[in-house]
Amino acid sequence: MSIATVQTRSLLGLKDLSQQEIQSILDRAAYWEQHPSKTHDLLKGRFISNMFFENSTRTRTSFEVAQKRLGAEVINFTAAASSVEKGESIYDTVRTLESMGIDAGVIRLKPIGLLAQMAEKIKVPLINAGDGNNEHPTQALLDLYTMQKHFGSLKGLKVAIIGDILHSRVARSNLYALRKFGAQVVFCAPENMQAAELDVEYVSMEQAINADVVMMLRVQLERHAAGMLKSAEAYRESYGLTVERAAAMQPHAIIMHPAPVNRDVEIDSELVEAPTSKIFPQMSNGVPVRMAVVERAMN
Amino acid sequence: MSIATVQTRSLLGLKDLSQQEIQSILDRAAYWEQHPSKTHDLLKGRFISNMFFENSTRTRTSFEVAQKRLGAEVINFTAAASSVEKGESIYDTVRTLESMGIDAGVIRLKPIGLLAQMAEKIKVPLINAGDGNNEHPTQALLDLYTMQKHFGSLKGLKVAIIGDILHSRVARSNLYALRKFGAQVVFCAPENMQAAELDVEYVSMEQAINADVVMMLRVQLERHAAGMLKSAEAYRESYGLTVERAAAMQPHAIIMHPAPVNRDVEIDSELVEAPTSKIFPQMSNGVPVRMAVVERAMN
Amino acid sequence: MSIATVQTRSLLGLKDLSQQEIQSILDRAAYWEQHPSKTHDLLKGRFISNMFFENSTRTRTSFEVAQKRLGAEVINFTAAASSVEKGESIYDTVRTLESMGIDAGVIRLKPIGLLAQMAEKIKVPLINAGDGNNEHPTQALLDLYTMQKHFGSLKGLKVAIIGDILHSRVARSNLYALRKFGAQVVFCAPENMQAAELDVEYVSMEQAINADVVMMLRVQLERHAAGMLKSAEAYRESYGLTVERAAAMQPHAIIMHPAPVNRDVEIDSELVEAPTSKIFPQMSNGVPVRMAVVERAMN
Repeated sequence: MSIATVQTRSLLGLKDLSQQEIQSILDRAAYWEQHPSKTHDLLKGRFISNMFFENSTRTRTSFEVAQKRLGAEVINFTAAASSVEKGESIYDTVRTLESMGIDAGVIRLKPIGLLAQMAEKIKVPLINAGDGNNEHPTQALLDLYTMQKHFGSLKGLKVAIIGDILHSRVARSNLYALRKFGAQVVFCAPENMQAAELDVEYVSMEQAINADVVMMLRVQLERHAAGMLKSAEAYRESYGLTVERAAAMQPHAIIMHPAPVNRDVEIDSELVEAPTSKIFPQMSNGVPVRMAVVERAMN
Repeated sequence: MSIATVQTRSLLGLKDLSQQEIQSILDRAAYWEQHPSKTHDLLKGRFISNMFFENSTRTRTSFEVAQKRLGAEVINFTAAASSVEKGESIYDTVRTLESMGIDAGVIRLKPIGLLAQMAEKIKVPLINAGDGNNEHPTQALLDLYTMQKHFGSLKGLKVAIIGDILHSRVARSNLYALRKFGAQVVFCAPENMQAAELDVEYVSMEQAINADVVMMLRVQLERHAAGMLKSAEAYRESYGLTVERAAAMQPHAIIMHPAPVNRDVEIDSELVEAPTSKIFPQMSNGVPVRMAVVERAMN
Repeated sequence: MSIATVQTRSLLGLKDLSQQEIQSILDRAAYWEQHPSKTHDLLKGRFISNMFFENSTRTRTSFEVAQKRLGAEVINFTAAASSVEKGESIYDTVRTLESMGIDAGVIRLKPIGLLAQMAEKIKVPLINAGDGNNEHPTQALLDLYTMQKHFGSLKGLKVAIIGDILHSRVARSNLYALRKFGAQVVFCAPENMQAAELDVEYVSMEQAINADVVMMLRVQLERHAAGMLKSAEAYRESYGLTVERAAAMQPHAIIMHPAPVNRDVEIDSELVEAPTSKIFPQMSNGVPVRMAVVERAMN
């Protein structure tokens, strides 16, 4: 199989995917959501490796459920951050798994630009499960799926993404994809968490919670030590979705969050399972969406 | 499925189970012990997640073997204690797995009372694999199974449980279950390891080793630093099952231990595989017992 | 099954295997290499446990792929070095897995002599996946397989093994096996990394790179702190396979390395995927070789 063919089956990001390609993944996810209860034989005898060079139990588990529902054999590989510090050894590990005969790899890693470089050389499709602060396409796909399911269409939808935009691959993938569908994206973030290179309007918290979709990002509490965050309480007061702020949301609007949540920091605990919250439905939707992505990679 | 139905398939503890219910699990375990060599298709396409918020390779592995023998798909989730310190994030993790479509969860956790709270809200059956110092029902079930297999009946059996009763969920689950079957349970423990809230007679080591079943508990050597334990040597001398003490046991009596053992602390190394020791047979029995419990949860 | 029968199916090392036995494993590996793409039902319903008391993602993953291709159920067990420091608890763990009904165990461990002791008592076949600095037979088997595939025959082949011979189980297993096939093995190592007990000629780096097979060993960089290694740069200068030295190799010669490599320490980065390098092909060959070994253990 040529590298070019492999690359069309890889999923490195949403930036370079067309609206049609994204929609066809979402449509296939809808099909899988209708066929949830059993494992399938579609990928029987095929091997897929989840290679996580950064911790993520949720995303890894969601992929594993998706892969096993499709009947694939799953090889999990998790590297402590310490043991894989250099980009080169990540490349060697991925090449190793490829050499062992896996048919596709799901990968999460931190070093900037490495995923794109590897995809030029690795001869099996790669699925991005979180790439530094660049993209996290399957998260954005499940977000779009969730919004489409709720609102019917993404066109004209106003989506406010609130929090640490600077370090958020979720924000970037959502931004790229939502705009292709004609949705309007605005950001809300403290100044030291804004991303200058993205051409997006920053709005006040008051304006942000007026959107159709209020998407909260997880605060990295460890940034507190680094001086980027004054305190969890101060953050909540300025940028948290509190019960008071949620009460000011539009009646038809929904709350989203990529999880895991810091309860009572970026979002009040009472809101996590509120009727307007799509946080756990997002996780449910993650499985059929990832089934569609894995199937696409291995077809 | 209603929460009430789910709850009757959960296994949170033995305290509230009837003798009949316990016996029917043990009977089904006997069936599975007769059909050990192959995987079955009973749970084909069904997903079960082992969610361990406290380390336990043995119990997790035993469940995994049981689940795979039944043909289920297994999703392992292990959280370092550090990353899941707050009860709330344990709840969020369990809800996450539930959202992803698992059919049942096996869970081990530390925070007191949390398992019972979660079982009120989670819509899939939960199996307790170790709940703080409350209960560890599958361990007690395999202990009862082992005793029943050896003695024929539990009625009138005298069982001495020796060691750190205060922190032992194994002691509690055995106590609750054994009494339902008419067995007599006595404890033997240093004063700072006794559990005041349990209405059980404490006996001397000399009396304890006169029982039909001498069940040793694992000493947590880390309690030494906390001042609860003088030293491993001193503990062995006062409360260890030494070769000398074992020689004074009744000829028909058996030695039990939930494992892993601290050799030459609570039990002398020579005794671990002695003919009177049921320690490794207990582990063998754990698989069919857990098959019965998992089958019951997912039926 | 008798212990004697079990032991003939175990693979503890190559030292005591005949050339014929080794060749029959390599022949079977060639068969499996021809049948790579699907899982087989050969070991359906059979359980195998990978018990790693020392880290090794590559070897564990290679075994896991091999086992799953044969259709076996895989139970992975990895112990942090800290939690299993005493040989006795390794033994207890292996006996535990045996008690749970596994059909064979793959094991990696550090304590010298323990594997051989355990094989006398454990009633299921054990496969050595790295035994202290004693043997690593499946690595040597895949090395022989790679050489045989490239050169046709091992007879008369000159193999130079370069690096920390003293601590290398790879060097020992290759030495034992290659000599049975009439290959000539020479070592090249700094004085404090030579193994006095092995009757092998030590040659200069200049002579070593003149061999048919130039097999580099991984440098344990942590030995630097212990004073055994001056520095990575100094090591590379004296014992590394640099681009310059590789240019002086014979045209038909090949480069091998058990991986993972320290790029630009024992081998220059440019050489890892050079046409003369068999490093990634070695990993590919590891899967069919381990299929043959696992099949042999469980037949």
